Amino acid sequence: MREVTIIGIGQTPVSEHWEKSLLVLAGEAVFAALEDAGLKSTGALYVGNMLSGVLDKQNHMGTLIVDWVGMRGHEAFKIEAACGSGAAAFRMGLMAVASGEIDSAVVVGVEKMTDSLPKKTTAGLATAADADWEIIHGLSFIGINALIMQRYIHEYGWKHEDFAPFSINAHNNALHNPNARLHIPLTKERYLKAAMISDPINLMDSSAIGDGAAAAVIVPADAVHQPDDLPKITVTGSGAATDSIAVHDRRDPLWLTAAEKSAKQAYHQSGVGPEDIDIFEVHDAFSIMSALSLEASGFAERGQGPRLGLDGEIGIDGRIPITTRGGLKARGHPVGATGMYQIVEVVEQLRGQADGSQVQGAKIGMAQNIGGSGATILTHILKSE
Amino acid sequence: MREVTIIGIGQTPVSEHWEKSLLVLAGEAVFAALEDAGLKSTGALYVGNMLSGVLDKQNHMGTLIVDWVGMRGHEAFKIEAACGSGAAAFRMGLMAVASGEIDSAVVVGVEKMTDSLPKKTTAGLATAADADWEIIHGLSFIGINALIMQRYIHEYGWKHEDFAPFSINAHNNALHNPNARLHIPLTKERYLKAAMISDPINLMDSSAIGDGAAAAVIVPADAVHQPDDLPKITVTGSGAATDSIAVHDRRDPLWLTAAEKSAKQAYHQSGVGPEDIDIFEVHDAFSIMSALSLEASGFAERGQGPRLGLDGEIGIDGRIPITTRGGLKARGHPVGATGMYQIVEVVEQLRGQADGSQVQGAKIGMAQNIGGSGATILTHILKSE
Repeated sequence: MREVTIIGIGQTPVSEHWEKSLLVLAGEAVFAALEDAGLKSTGALYVGNMLSGVLDKQNHMGTLIVDWVGMRGHEAFKIEAACGSGAAAFRMGLMAVASGEIDSAVVVGVEKMTDSLPKKTTAGLATAADADWEIIHGLSFIGINALIMQRYIHEYGWKHEDFAPFSINAHNNALHNPNARLHIPLTKERYLKAAMISDPINLMDSSAIGDGAAAAVIVPADAVHQPDDLPKITVTGSGAATDSIAVHDRRDPLWLTAAEKSAKQAYHQSGVGPEDIDIFEVHDAFSIMSALSLEASGFAERGQGPRLGLDGEIGIDGRIPITTRGGLKARGHPVGATGMYQIVEVVEQLRGQADGSQVQGAKIGMAQNIGGSGATILTHILKSE
Repeated sequence: MREVTIIGIGQTPVSEHWEKSLLVLAGEAVFAALEDAGLKSTGALYVGNMLSGVLDKQNHMGTLIVDWVGMRGHEAFKIEAACGSGAAAFRMGLMAVASGEIDSAVVVGVEKMTDSLPKKTTAGLATAADADWEIIHGLSFIGINALIMQRYIHEYGWKHEDFAPFSINAHNNALHNPNARLHIPLTKERYLKAAMISDPINLMDSSAIGDGAAAAVIVPADAVHQPDDLPKITVTGSGAATDSIAVHDRRDPLWLTAAEKSAKQAYHQSGVGPEDIDIFEVHDAFSIMSALSLEASGFAERGQGPRLGLDGEIGIDGRIPITTRGGLKARGHPVGATGMYQIVEVVEQLRGQADGSQVQGAKIGMAQNIGGSGATILTHILKSE
């Protein structure tokens, strides 16, 4: 596939934006990304979004947004893969540009979740699971993840507190990110005292939903003459894979097969391995997912993900810094937008713009976006030159 | 863009499939398309669907379907562009294959609408319009189209009965299509006596919703050694364009700017013009849309679309046969699936498999799929060799 370069990024803070519509949020991110790229428009716009039809009574978001941002007439579609929608839209954008059919595109992930009643939002999120075989039993998304974490703790002998470093790291990194949803320092004591949601998942194991949008402008790599003040950021690897949606249908519910497969695709395309990755934005919807992602992507042995946290290897100065801008846990998880926040944050790191949580000398960054409980997983690798 | 060939097609009848789930319907179309292509699986699966989240409480359809059809692990996403979702998914599939990233893909459009209460389905369809500026006023989708038709009749001096040939042609062609929703011969008398829905749109101006799925298998054109018994069907043109979603925002509500733009793109890529098209599957959600599509795509002068029907030019033996398998009107309009039904039907015609309504010697076929009231329009041109 022809290489593609990211020449502009934009994002809104993740927050409770009750005064802003889906369109306004998407527009803010797109305008920021276009301005960053020095463009007024692109050939196409692709939207990652999961819940607008369910929560906002608005489908057809692609065309709505492309008109709103002053690009009426240009091609625009929405791509949906549950909480993996952001990275799925990014990948479709990459393929559109790589095909030669589209000369430039802006990809925006957007979601608005906090205007709805919590029970409606929870029911909306449940549409990512298998309606006929999981949800019909009353299992919520948190319930599914709690069963996985319960089994993981049983199988590998960890204690709940061993997952604390994932959440503490995310919260502490978010303190430096003006776009993060939560600016709350987290201690181990506070983690342990947090309210139980679905045993063993407590409030501090859970990511915060939110409203927000993040966008990137992409063009063919060979079309770019990079100015001197910023490094050129190229997408060198893009992998996508799936697994059964219902977790009970998997041979091993504690192994993210789709993470392993998509990471291997991305490594292969980039000609690198886990040892070359300088930062890794994981999909920490729940703390257990950080452990599973690190294992399946080759950073830890099976069942040993929490060890990286306990040994201090996931911090900014560690061997594999994760959730460097707060992750889903503390930057927030506006579901269909999350994958694009991850891409934007990796670009910030590779450009040296991650003030306060900058990983020094970061040259190769990876983002992994998950839809469902490991059912759809996309891995992207970006390099700065 | 690298040329892509369609090597397999499949479809379910459009009907009230109360005994079959979304998954079962999608699976039937995918299995039929794979069998037709002589394959067991493809590298990726893309789904065109609009309403599963709203009507079936199920998002994440791509991954659900890819697992169901025995392709667990393979990449899968849903693409949504309201009633244009089917062709949007097809176009994303084309670009994925053309990029070289995906070696083969199956694209399936699927929708299930008849299990829900009619008022819920109507509310679901309204999510294709602008929630803040159209729907909030109580305007339904039929209402929007009625306003357009009213204005068209006023502006160009037609009578309601002048639109009868569009519906009569569609119904008569559907008599020969075993997959059509309606097998009801339509006379002018019956058309005129039909119940009024939203003046001037009566029941016989309106397409029939339904449940159904249609699928196609695509591969790079240079990868195919076509057997002798069937012609090779190549996608020579693919255009996509948008307009404002709210019709009142358009300079001219009687001109489908996005149809003109996407058709021109497709003509240009294919090196043909309207005069070269042997059949044209239009998006006749309402009879007025047939007229507007024919005009914007270059088959009639502005305001003169109905003339083609009155002169008998849209029939199987006419200058530009349309809705040759029944169209949205009588084959039925399972919204997110419709774009893929159109593609499948063009392939049937170019293969000479359109029993009973075969256009003799058809070599170049066109399909135009519309999301919203002209807001998202995709035009594809297929050639047989």
